[in-house]
Amino acid sequence: MEVLVPFSTDRPKSRLSAVLTPDERTAFSRAMLRDVLDAIGEAGEEPRVLATGAVDADLPCPVTVDDRPLTDAVNAALDARLGESDTVADRVAVVMADLALATPDALRELFAAGREAEVAIAPGRGGGTNAFVAGHPEFETDYHGTSYLDHRRIADGIGASVAVVDSHRLATDVDEPADLAEVLIHAEADDGGDDGDGERAPRWLRDAGFALETTGGRVGVERE
Amino acid sequence: MEVLVPFSTDRPKSRLSAVLTPDERTAFSRAMLRDVLDAIGEAGEEPRVLATGAVDADLPCPVTVDDRPLTDAVNAALDARLGESDTVADRVAVVMADLALATPDALRELFAAGREAEVAIAPGRGGGTNAFVAGHPEFETDYHGTSYLDHRRIADGIGASVAVVDSHRLATDVDEPADLAEVLIHAEADDGGDDGDGERAPRWLRDAGFALETTGGRVGVERE
Repeated sequence: MEVLVPFSTDRPKSRLSAVLTPDERTAFSRAMLRDVLDAIGEAGEEPRVLATGAVDADLPCPVTVDDRPLTDAVNAALDARLGESDTVADRVAVVMADLALATPDALRELFAAGREAEVAIAPGRGGGTNAFVAGHPEFETDYHGTSYLDHRRIADGIGASVAVVDSHRLATDVDEPADLAEVLIHAEADDGGDDGDGERAPRWLRDAGFALETTGGRVGVERE
Repeated sequence: MEVLVPFSTDRPKSRLSAVLTPDERTAFSRAMLRDVLDAIGEAGEEPRVLATGAVDADLPCPVTVDDRPLTDAVNAALDARLGESDTVADRVAVVMADLALATPDALRELFAAGREAEVAIAPGRGGGTNAFVAGHPEFETDYHGTSYLDHRRIADGIGASVAVVDSHRLATDVDEPADLAEVLIHAEADDGGDDGDGERAPRWLRDAGFALETTGGRVGVERE
């Protein structure tokens, strides 16, 4: 199955501007993109980056450039793949580029759900749509607002069967400073505290001086 | 399997004080508790509330009162059930009372993982431990700090096999105002926008005037 990974090359991750410079946000967003592409590949599927502009990086997969807003670009891609022929072309998946916690296992669960249902959705925290698989020719996206609820309504409206994928890893898009803690926590859990290896995004954060900080309530990050 | 549900009767949910009065926080925390107890029962297991004081509510299960801090009370309960006999008493689960999104399906996955591994953990957002199943007599808890990482280390230290349960529903404990949006989003998705039925916690929030609010970034709540 082809897995589209939308990626904004224009001022990525602006909500991290309190803790990262523009150049750092570009570098960190590319590290997350590479991790996501690798996880998709390890899950046995074929990633393709759907970028708003040329990506100045060595990527392990094809890149399609479409400078329209996210909703329009994804809908055009879905239409080209699912909408035109009588023989429905299998399935298309769309996975966000900032799912730094995504593992091959979590993605395999999404892809498997998307082979059973006509629309499989992994909701993001805060009502977003962090990943989905569509196999219905009339399904289209609307990424504004509470897109998870909108996508459920769109699927209901066209009579598509729906599966919801309940995954903390897929629900965690990295948008805000508090989300950086999530990246470090699960990297530390996965590699047993070994800083040497692991994924690019947590390594980038550690190299930039970020570490977990325990105060009252939830755990955050601090920077040296 | 017995499923302990720790519940604080003393100033519950203080981090919601910006949006709820003390009496409201008490009522809302009880609504969440009842939803969690029901979900455990529907998943086929036996809940028992482990409360810091007498619970002034009609609960569908037994209540044990232990006024010690959470870590001490849970460790005493684990020790009484797993630590004393040669024949390890099956498994004990501990599920937090503020997992308002918990469904029988999500809990079944936790319980199933806990029957396979000696320790199964559902991490919470921010590095907490929102639910676990223990079957190893030496496992003990430490809820301070990044307890998910601490519990992984404790399990490793006693040579217990570990399973991690990747669930957005179990990762979402309701502590802060932004978490209320999560309760409303998934209730609306589950009941198709029908306000009439559903779980107690989202109904309580709707009755108190809360509704989803879409501004920039993640979706929040507003109150009439």
